[in-house]
Amino acid sequence: MQTLLLNADDVDENARMDRVIDAVRGAFTAYERGNAKMPAKSYIDLPEYNGDFRSMPAYLDVRTEDTAEDAGWDAAGIKWVNVHTDNPADHDLPTVMGTMIYSDPETAFPLAVLDGTTLTMKRTGAAAAVATDELAVPDATSLGIVGAGVQSYTQLAAIAAVRDIKEVVVSDLDEERVADFIASFEDRFEVRRGSISEAGHCDVLSTVTPVEEPIVGPDDVGEHTHINAMGADAAGKHELDDDLLLDAAVVIDDHEQCTHSGEINVPYTAGVLTDDDIYGEIGEIVVGNRPGRTGAGFESGGAEAGDDSDDGADAGVDGVTVFDSTGLAIQDVAAARVVYEQADDNDNGYPFDLLGLAE
Amino acid sequence: MQTLLLNADDVDENARMDRVIDAVRGAFTAYERGNAKMPAKSYIDLPEYNGDFRSMPAYLDVRTEDTAEDAGWDAAGIKWVNVHTDNPADHDLPTVMGTMIYSDPETAFPLAVLDGTTLTMKRTGAAAAVATDELAVPDATSLGIVGAGVQSYTQLAAIAAVRDIKEVVVSDLDEERVADFIASFEDRFEVRRGSISEAGHCDVLSTVTPVEEPIVGPDDVGEHTHINAMGADAAGKHELDDDLLLDAAVVIDDHEQCTHSGEINVPYTAGVLTDDDIYGEIGEIVVGNRPGRTGAGFESGGAEAGDDSDDGADAGVDGVTVFDSTGLAIQDVAAARVVYEQADDNDNGYPFDLLGLAE
Repeated sequence: MQTLLLNADDVDENARMDRVIDAVRGAFTAYERGNAKMPAKSYIDLPEYNGDFRSMPAYLDVRTEDTAEDAGWDAAGIKWVNVHTDNPADHDLPTVMGTMIYSDPETAFPLAVLDGTTLTMKRTGAAAAVATDELAVPDATSLGIVGAGVQSYTQLAAIAAVRDIKEVVVSDLDEERVADFIASFEDRFEVRRGSISEAGHCDVLSTVTPVEEPIVGPDDVGEHTHINAMGADAAGKHELDDDLLLDAAVVIDDHEQCTHSGEINVPYTAGVLTDDDIYGEIGEIVVGNRPGRTGAGFESGGAEAGDDSDDGADAGVDGVTVFDSTGLAIQDVAAARVVYEQADDNDNGYPFDLLGLAE
Repeated sequence: MQTLLLNADDVDENARMDRVIDAVRGAFTAYERGNAKMPAKSYIDLPEYNGDFRSMPAYLDVRTEDTAEDAGWDAAGIKWVNVHTDNPADHDLPTVMGTMIYSDPETAFPLAVLDGTTLTMKRTGAAAAVATDELAVPDATSLGIVGAGVQSYTQLAAIAAVRDIKEVVVSDLDEERVADFIASFEDRFEVRRGSISEAGHCDVLSTVTPVEEPIVGPDDVGEHTHINAMGADAAGKHELDDDLLLDAAVVIDDHEQCTHSGEINVPYTAGVLTDDDIYGEIGEIVVGNRPGRTGAGFESGGAEAGDDSDDGADAGVDGVTVFDSTGLAIQDVAAARVVYEQADDNDNGYPFDLLGLAE
């Protein structure tokens, strides 16, 4: 019995996006139904290196779920990931790097060790796709991207798997990034550079920046735009104006993570945005306990939903929607399973007798 | 930049025991001085598989310490380890398997992925050696082993590095295990099978069993025996009679871990053994904040020490001593560093471009 080593290219090749989306949908479902075990992320802060380490262990069981295409699996693993902001300038290394151990829950044998950096991009794109599928207008054809860094690529790839995206507007201060992004996708989409407001008036908008001051205001988005707010990953970061958030139906992935380090953390900590302004968790919508976009009956705005959230919930959402994605360990485990299974089928990767148990 | 993969043999070959002992001593020192960051172990319990996963992240900094031979380093990493008790019978796999990611704290680059199972044995033996060095009589020449499983081998190897062990008495109900143990060491030591009491009357005793009912009583040990109680790793397990513990000077590795899952957890939870019965932490002794065995002035017994523990501490210990070892994540990181550095020097292991960052 050997451990399959899957490097960045292996993860990229074997993370078929439709399957990753399905697996992440299954993860949100398991979480909502209480079939996931996910201890809180634990942090090791290293201020002397301007960085931190995060450990993200999880187990999830979708054996009783019907939402996943390939229902009938459970999975376990841990991602060890960091944020070291000086890496690019000082060490020619990425700010964020991840290593994932994917384990058989029945025996705990480490089935695979994977590049967790590429995996993170895939599962993050997949989470945006699941939310977009529930919350964007059904006939969405345009996608705006604010922030053309590494995460933006999987936003487009994933969202295009759930909506028939034809037009893409990308906004970034860095001309080279924009040019690289356009060059990567212009054969498949009508991609052009635009302002934040032009990106925000698309049917779907993904914000993927590390800013600490909001850059997207209420006038920058359309009446029915669904926004995937992907950038905030630490206390103090947010991309959307408070007014925009308060007028939108806000869907979170996890209450603890979002209120501490997600898009809503700043206004939540300030008391400007409260639990009454949160429409629900993505898992509730995925399993049908709370409607997604219905196009009827719901005047967008957390306040109304908050006044009587059950009634609001029953009616569904119709205006601007926001998905506050912080990224859950169960997403990593679910995505790792897709990659491992496909790589194993394809004889990809490098089998290694890490534990000395091979015959 | 590549990640060095170190399998079970690589870890075994590159874990030079004298250096691992030194590194573990450095880890205890850093912990005592507040130079370690070690979030609580987090557990994922999987009762349906009769098992659990544990994540053990840590960072330690011995750059300001003077105890380690190779002072001047810091290190980070995480061990992902399990206990699945049905593995041997149902899956022909070990109960415990571990995978370790060893990272550069400055950039977080994963320098190595190591077999964590072999690493655990090495660092556990090293912890017993550090405690033995502080607490056993200086002229100890005999070592008793109760429980001749996989962990017993590194007990002998490590303890023989800090005391001039000549005679070894091994006690186990399983004849084959005893024979294997004797065969492994009879060229270097005078090794014989014996009763628990014969093993316990050696100068040093290591208990390495998973029992839930104590098997070593007060009459089973010598007047000055130092006991390394290594077996208890979960609530409900203990190897030593309460009377033995209460009469001994008990040294722990970590208060939270020991009271929850270490040798003292059962009497501590029952209120039979209290904080007053704990002599101190191994880190306090290693750094000299509390004396180890001095051979004078200290009537063995937690009660006396507890009545006025500072006075008792100043006088040191002389009677029966017990080291309650639960195993700390900083030990794994310290041991991983030794293995990685030596393997890198020796061009051992398999360099792998896990993150796709090699030029």
